[in-house]
Amino acid sequence: MGNPVITLTTDFGDKDPFVGIMKGVILNINPHTTIVDITHRISAHNIIEAAFVIENCFSFFPRKTIHVVVVDPGVGSSRRAILVATENHYFVGPDNGVFSRIYKIGENPIVINITSEHYFLPKRSSTFHGRDVFAPVAGWLSRGIEISNFGEQIQDYVSIDTPIVIKHADNIIEGEVIYIDGFGNLITNIPAIEIEKLLNINADKKLKIFIKDTEAPLMSYYSEGKNDHLYSIINSFGYLEFFIYKGNASLSSGIKVGEKVMVILS
Amino acid sequence: MGNPVITLTTDFGDKDPFVGIMKGVILNINPHTTIVDITHRISAHNIIEAAFVIENCFSFFPRKTIHVVVVDPGVGSSRRAILVATENHYFVGPDNGVFSRIYKIGENPIVINITSEHYFLPKRSSTFHGRDVFAPVAGWLSRGIEISNFGEQIQDYVSIDTPIVIKHADNIIEGEVIYIDGFGNLITNIPAIEIEKLLNINADKKLKIFIKDTEAPLMSYYSEGKNDHLYSIINSFGYLEFFIYKGNASLSSGIKVGEKVMVILS
Amino acid sequence: MGNPVITLTTDFGDKDPFVGIMKGVILNINPHTTIVDITHRISAHNIIEAAFVIENCFSFFPRKTIHVVVVDPGVGSSRRAILVATENHYFVGPDNGVFSRIYKIGENPIVINITSEHYFLPKRSSTFHGRDVFAPVAGWLSRGIEISNFGEQIQDYVSIDTPIVIKHADNIIEGEVIYIDGFGNLITNIPAIEIEKLLNINADKKLKIFIKDTEAPLMSYYSEGKNDHLYSIINSFGYLEFFIYKGNASLSSGIKVGEKVMVILS
Repeated sequence: MGNPVITLTTDFGDKDPFVGIMKGVILNINPHTTIVDITHRISAHNIIEAAFVIENCFSFFPRKTIHVVVVDPGVGSSRRAILVATENHYFVGPDNGVFSRIYKIGENPIVINITSEHYFLPKRSSTFHGRDVFAPVAGWLSRGIEISNFGEQIQDYVSIDTPIVIKHADNIIEGEVIYIDGFGNLITNIPAIEIEKLLNINADKKLKIFIKDTEAPLMSYYSEGKNDHLYSIINSFGYLEFFIYKGNASLSSGIKVGEKVMVILS
Repeated sequence: MGNPVITLTTDFGDKDPFVGIMKGVILNINPHTTIVDITHRISAHNIIEAAFVIENCFSFFPRKTIHVVVVDPGVGSSRRAILVATENHYFVGPDNGVFSRIYKIGENPIVINITSEHYFLPKRSSTFHGRDVFAPVAGWLSRGIEISNFGEQIQDYVSIDTPIVIKHADNIIEGEVIYIDGFGNLITNIPAIEIEKLLNINADKKLKIFIKDTEAPLMSYYSEGKNDHLYSIINSFGYLEFFIYKGNASLSSGIKVGEKVMVILS
Repeated sequence: MGNPVITLTTDFGDKDPFVGIMKGVILNINPHTTIVDITHRISAHNIIEAAFVIENCFSFFPRKTIHVVVVDPGVGSSRRAILVATENHYFVGPDNGVFSRIYKIGENPIVINITSEHYFLPKRSSTFHGRDVFAPVAGWLSRGIEISNFGEQIQDYVSIDTPIVIKHADNIIEGEVIYIDGFGNLITNIPAIEIEKLLNINADKKLKIFIKDTEAPLMSYYSEGKNDHLYSIINSFGYLEFFIYKGNASLSSGIKVGEKVMVILS
């Protein structure tokens, strides 16, 4: 079909030339690639945020896309570089838990410890493996090199805990804010399916949604919400989210990542 | 020729993965596209600003380019999705006036109400039609699907008023600041041609340009202006603009979008 | 091989549509190009910063890549537009010193004064030569037009002084901070090779590195540094750099570009 697609997700920001350099390295190895930026504004060193972002993005890309994720506070230390192959996608990055949410999706991932240094840039720095290791590995992978050529399969890859949803009794779900988007919307870890299950228990009862002692009525679309009040919605990733229509819910309420959220059927 | 070109103009910012996801959706439908970002920093929900930006950009792109504009405060409500076909370009976005300035250019646009849901993503959210509707429609359009296949032609599309230039007597033009660029330059809605017409009336008289009680002499290029004073210039879009050389005119003067501007021949 | 690659480095920021327009112009002339952003966040009008960035990026791109650099405070004045051809790369931009560090690398550059206006856009503005001159020249160059067709070779191109490293006695190197990256790391102009030479003089003595009266021990990789203290490292460009692990060295210390740095063997 078309060119192989490589996506980039980093905490490098958009001021420095680091991302451009990675693209140069990839194109030098395989000029027939389409490179797509997912974001370079992951909060610095925030592995959990990167894990959340890549989980919610990868499946919209074509089969065989290579997703490079570089949020890598341990660069240059003994932390491993890994290549993760699921049924339909590849992932390349540091073995620090950044792919934790990919492992849990259940596509039976194969995880390779990348050790074949002839696929790296010849002069490797201790501060920029995005350029020296991850970009060139993605470039060679896009040229069809077999994953087994990059190193040995491992089972002890790093997986980190991400915030989980707790059920109290059978009518209460407790979750938390895990990401604040650029509009100030507060995205939680409560999936739509858990709210539907709650409703199925007793459809006569009413759903109430609370964040920081405020009730935020559930709307079907943004412009249904009146200005200056906090509302909730099932967002495009399938998670419960809080918003203020044409406003910034995070700035107005002062709510940050980690704030507890309650969904109550009563 | 080359790959079909698709441009993206949104208010999504550069922190979140929304734009990257739209690109994944497009490449999944048509891997043979070249996708170009125009900007993702339109002020949130600012339809007039988006209308100004796309008006001043589209014609620099190759014929048959597809311009996707997603500034969409009404997403999920009953506002329509539209496809606009002019003689040389396509436009895809919400029917909220974002293409108002395209309608006025006079290329006899055909406007289609996009209703053929088989061109959307199968699971449509009520919050992210950039991903679920506009990106896939652009992808299919770039594969050569006829525009009539996307829905019926409409005449009652939404057109919004944009600030107009007023002529007082025959020697005064009144306009206003409609956009402030990243350097702090103040871009007005007064076209160069109106200033030329004024000069043609009486070339012996002198042109004076005022903003907020300050006279801003007209320069031919930026570095002609001395530091720390407000000057005016005909900018690259063909409009009157105010600047401070190597300075930020907006920050220094406190002038914002909407400030009145006077051009007087006397 | 693949499509010709064109890189873009500017101070245009990411709010305005200027960069997108340049890409439209290039694709209109040559739809078979791969365009890569290096950065658009060069500090406004900062020619030295742009010279540093392009010097450290260009060699990672494929042979024959065309690097367009538009940091151009003199746009519209009589400053010349130039095309620089080294053995392996092309550079296009204003003749204001932005390529000073390329001239010094010693690949025997040929510098052409771009005067062939039929390669420009037909209507040239005095404020946006990125669109009207540099983008179209890059587009035509990528189609294989000979460099001699763009104008005459010149020898009196502008070269600006960039901060140099000073050696005091044979045991002290004095340099300075020349760039602060998006993590707040302080990048100096002291190359690793100068530090190695110092160590070769007397390997029994110890190296001490100072910035603003603070000693910053030299580390091998970032995560070796304990939180909240200033450390030094040889960075990925091969220069001495100061950092705080998981912190922002610039914000914490208040150190800015121009701060003096001492490396002492004693």
